Amino acid sequence: MQKTVLKQRTPAGMLDILPEAAAVLEKLERDIMELFYLWAYDRVITPTIEFAACVQPESDGEDHLYKFFDRRGRIIALRPEFTTPIARMVSSRMRELKLPLRFSYSGNVFRYTTDDRPREFRQAGVELIGSASALADAEIIALAIEALRRLGIKDFQLSMGEMSIFVGLMEETGISEGLRAQLENALSRKDIVAIEQLADQNRLTESVRKILLRLPHLRGGVEILDEVSQLSNRPAVAGAVENLRRVYDYLGEFGVQDAVVLDMGVLRGFAYYTGVIFEGYVPGVAFPVIEGGRYDRLYDDFQNPLPATGFALNLSSLVTFLPEQKAPEEQETVDGEQAGQVIRRCRELRAQGRRTVMALR
Amino acid sequence: MQKTVLKQRTPAGMLDILPEAAAVLEKLERDIMELFYLWAYDRVITPTIEFAACVQPESDGEDHLYKFFDRRGRIIALRPEFTTPIARMVSSRMRELKLPLRFSYSGNVFRYTTDDRPREFRQAGVELIGSASALADAEIIALAIEALRRLGIKDFQLSMGEMSIFVGLMEETGISEGLRAQLENALSRKDIVAIEQLADQNRLTESVRKILLRLPHLRGGVEILDEVSQLSNRPAVAGAVENLRRVYDYLGEFGVQDAVVLDMGVLRGFAYYTGVIFEGYVPGVAFPVIEGGRYDRLYDDFQNPLPATGFALNLSSLVTFLPEQKAPEEQETVDGEQAGQVIRRCRELRAQGRRTVMALR
Repeated sequence: MQKTVLKQRTPAGMLDILPEAAAVLEKLERDIMELFYLWAYDRVITPTIEFAACVQPESDGEDHLYKFFDRRGRIIALRPEFTTPIARMVSSRMRELKLPLRFSYSGNVFRYTTDDRPREFRQAGVELIGSASALADAEIIALAIEALRRLGIKDFQLSMGEMSIFVGLMEETGISEGLRAQLENALSRKDIVAIEQLADQNRLTESVRKILLRLPHLRGGVEILDEVSQLSNRPAVAGAVENLRRVYDYLGEFGVQDAVVLDMGVLRGFAYYTGVIFEGYVPGVAFPVIEGGRYDRLYDDFQNPLPATGFALNLSSLVTFLPEQKAPEEQETVDGEQAGQVIRRCRELRAQGRRTVMALR
Repeated sequence: MQKTVLKQRTPAGMLDILPEAAAVLEKLERDIMELFYLWAYDRVITPTIEFAACVQPESDGEDHLYKFFDRRGRIIALRPEFTTPIARMVSSRMRELKLPLRFSYSGNVFRYTTDDRPREFRQAGVELIGSASALADAEIIALAIEALRRLGIKDFQLSMGEMSIFVGLMEETGISEGLRAQLENALSRKDIVAIEQLADQNRLTESVRKILLRLPHLRGGVEILDEVSQLSNRPAVAGAVENLRRVYDYLGEFGVQDAVVLDMGVLRGFAYYTGVIFEGYVPGVAFPVIEGGRYDRLYDDFQNPLPATGFALNLSSLVTFLPEQKAPEEQETVDGEQAGQVIRRCRELRAQGRRTVMALR
């Protein structure tokens, strides 16, 4: 039976990875997992399929999940990320382990995006669970930078912000959930006009308005923290600044401070971030290749309240960025009239560790 | 929001792989992919999601596919194996490449089984595409045995048979599809009573009846090929015997003949096998951990007729079989009053390649 032309295609966003790119991806993954191991992160593997209730974000918007009914009518989903499944795993199977826990992962995640991006991609990352210390935040950011360096990426930029400046302001001023989401959206796009309109329409106080309009512009070295302090004497702001200052100092000890830019405009969609957050860009890729930060509320959902921080790296997006990483392909080809001789020669070469092609007559 | 107890579980057959098992699986995969590379197989990666029409077996029975509708109403499926997706990929994207092609893969496959086996497991394998030579069959079987040896498995048994003895007999005697499926099922279970009943009910000739009843018992060294020859002078049988004899000889040159048992009762469910087939068992695992063989009809489905052979290894099933492979965990822990000192000491140790845990105060 001949299959139809349509059926010889792959579904939208689903890609074949041919040998050259697959070799690069394999090498990237091996290098990164070795680094995570060196930093004492143990690899775990969660299933591709989860109940949707586990991995579904709680916001009302489009969730980009691949969701299906199982044969019993329950909604299951392909994992869109690893952080929540690992929280489920830790909370259901590892409550007796000594904290903090350090876990790494690498595997494919699935997002039903509506643009032309791949809908399946390889993500590698780490989670540091059970520590609220600024040292834990610094460890995670330092490891993120070491990861990008290990992969041979020099020209990257890692922006670090603090969710609690914005979140704290919103909480302290009693701003509604709906307005908060609109402001977050406008801030993350650095859309000053939208921020002004929202401030006017909702009659925000002059001090809050001033901070919101200034935050997207505060980007640079440690000096910007002084300016943030001067913007507001609210406790949320003071606490966030103190925390950022400590993490930034630790990053100096880790030898990675030069790779970090403080950016008060970094705010992200995943509702679960609560503290220091960061994202890394490389030239030629329109979205962050690395995203991470502190998420101290997520484990509450699993009745296992624990502070945590971590990051995820989009390995697939780096394959096209690093084509030169491919190892030169050295191999022998053994040919001959007499099959027995050919086979024995192949055995010899392979026993010496040499990649060998056997000609097939 | 607290998630319900149900939602903190994983769907049936979906497993978390904890650090110890994940480390073993990672090592197994790395070792096996290195071996495939040494034998000149290039890694490819196909997507997790395919159109069901691509990967759906053509038999009428339960197909064990994870199948869903996409948002446009088309049926998509999680790949149950890699052989068919690779045939799709080769046929749609690699027609210009020089034959034979050698590809390797490792990734998760999904089967909606109704027993309590894992429904997602890691499969690694190879495909040798574009050669009908007995040398190609021998290469694949020798590589399968080297793979099991490389993984440290000593106590395995690899049974080799020939689909074309049975298939050829069925074709030459004009037996219907339906009866053929029943006989294949009875033979694969070595159910002599069922074979006798089917032979009686369908009035098979005495010679065909004799062969069918004898095949399941023919198991051993090269001497059984003489007995097969004597059972029938039909061309299908003679050709199959000659082919098996040649492959078996080549396996001697590969130094793996002692690991192979000729077994005329090896017949398998996947309809696409056409020639030499084999399966490997290890103690304590109820199903074959390795399965492979020649499938010269599959590429016809993609309007790209090519002979091919290959095998797949169930890596996940070997993790529990090989717990002793786990590397002893050597690591340093650095603690201290002064965070800067702790960080710098961690950096030193990691620069020396030593796995280091940073205590978080």
